[in-house]
Amino acid sequence: MSLRDFTRIGRKIVAIGRNYAEHAKELNNPVPTSPFFFLKPTTSYLLQPGKIEVPRNCVVHHEVELGVVIGKNGRDITAARADDFIGGYVLALDMTARNLQDEAKKSGKPWAAAKGFDTFTPVSDFIERSAIKNPHDLRLWLKVDERTVQDGSTQDMIFKIPQLIEFVSSIMKLEEGDVILTGTPKGVGPVKAGQTVTGGLQLPGSGKDVIATFSF
Amino acid sequence: MSLRDFTRIGRKIVAIGRNYAEHAKELNNPVPTSPFFFLKPTTSYLLQPGKIEVPRNCVVHHEVELGVVIGKNGRDITAARADDFIGGYVLALDMTARNLQDEAKKSGKPWAAAKGFDTFTPVSDFIERSAIKNPHDLRLWLKVDERTVQDGSTQDMIFKIPQLIEFVSSIMKLEEGDVILTGTPKGVGPVKAGQTVTGGLQLPGSGKDVIATFSF
Ligand SMILES: [Mg+2]
Ligand SMILES: [Mg+2]
Ligand SMILES: [Mg+2]
Repeated sequence: MSLRDFTRIGRKIVAIGRNYAEHAKELNNPVPTSPFFFLKPTTSYLLQPGKIEVPRNCVVHHEVELGVVIGKNGRDITAARADDFIGGYVLALDMTARNLQDEAKKSGKPWAAAKGFDTFTPVSDFIERSAIKNPHDLRLWLKVDERTVQDGSTQDMIFKIPQLIEFVSSIMKLEEGDVILTGTPKGVGPVKAGQTVTGGLQLPGSGKDVIATFSF
Repeated sequence: MSLRDFTRIGRKIVAIGRNYAEHAKELNNPVPTSPFFFLKPTTSYLLQPGKIEVPRNCVVHHEVELGVVIGKNGRDITAARADDFIGGYVLALDMTARNLQDEAKKSGKPWAAAKGFDTFTPVSDFIERSAIKNPHDLRLWLKVDERTVQDGSTQDMIFKIPQLIEFVSSIMKLEEGDVILTGTPKGVGPVKAGQTVTGGLQLPGSGKDVIATFSF
C-alpha cells in the first residue's frame, strides 16, 4: 500500500492541543509551556466528498490543522532526525464536540468522546512531502459557507513539527501512516446542519491552495 | 488474518474508566452514572513474554481488566444485538502513569499520554469466545511478585458489556480486532523495576486460569 492510503494504513491520530497561542487564549486556556496531545480514532477519518455528523446535543466546532503523515516507524526520535520520518502532509479538520469537551475538562475526564465521533477528522487528499518545502510557512484558512473564520499561518505554531515528533515518539512509537495534527489557529467556532466548511492550505510559490470541502 | 492476531489487526483500544464502584472510590473519584472511556494506542500492546516500561519520573500503576475483542464492524449497535459483535476476549493490564493522569485530571487535559506509553497494554493470548460462557461471572486477579493485590469479579461491573458496546458504538464505529477494556476492580497500585506482575482470569467450571505474566 502507498502512503496515499494513510487513512487505511495508519493506526493512530495524535492531535496536539493549543499549539497556537491566540487559539489557546480564545478558549480561555493557558498557553502551554510543553506540548500535550490526545488521540483520535482512525474511524473518525472522512474523505471527500463527505458529510460531517452533528451528533445530537452536540455543539460541533471546526479546527483547521496541518497534519503530518508519518513515513516510517520510529521511537525516541530526536528533533534533529525528525525530518526523515515525515512521509507527507494532509489538510485536516479536528472536529470537536465543544460542549462535551468543556464538560470533560471541568470534571477531569478524557477528551476521547468529544474528539472521536465518526466523521470528526475530515481530510484532504494526501500531500506529497516534496510539495511543501517549509511546513512552517503556510497559510491555513477555513470558511463556513462564504465567510472566512480561521486565517492563520503555520509560522505561529508554538512547538514546531520536529519538537512534536520528538515529544510524541518519546511516549509512543510512531508508525507508517500515523498522523500528527499540529493544532489550530484562532477562529474556531460552531457549525450547523446545512452549512459547508472549506479548509485551505496555501502552498507558497505555487499560488495554489489545497482545498478540502465538507458539508453538514 | 485471524482474530487471534487482534493486536495487529485492531486499530483502537477503547478503555472504560471507573467501571467498578470500589475502584472509583479508592481513587476518590465519583462512581459514574454513565460510562466514559479513553483511547489507548495499539502501539501500547505488549505480548508475553515482555517487559513493561517504567518511564522516567512516572508512578506506574497496574489495572487488571477483561478485554472484549470485537469480531465484526458495527456502528450504533444496540445492547440487544451486542453479543453478535463479540469475537473473543483477552486478559489485559491497563498500565497507567498515575502521576501524569492525576496532573491531567487536575488541569482538564487529556489522558492519552498517561495511558499510552509503549508496553502499557500487556495482554494474554486471545481467548476464544466459546471459552467464556458468561463474561460477567469471572474472577479477575493480579499479583505483584507473590502478593495478590487485586481480586475482583466481573459481576461487579457497573455497566455490562452489552451496554458498553452500545455506548461506544453510538460514538464511533467498532471494527474487527478493536478491543474494549472493561475497567478494573479495586486494588490498583504502583509497580517498580525488578518486580513481576501476574494477571489471572478464572474460567468457571474449567478450574483453569488464563494467566499473563510480565516483568518490569
Ligand atoms: Mg484522551
Ligand atoms: Mg485541534
Ligand atoms: Mg483501566
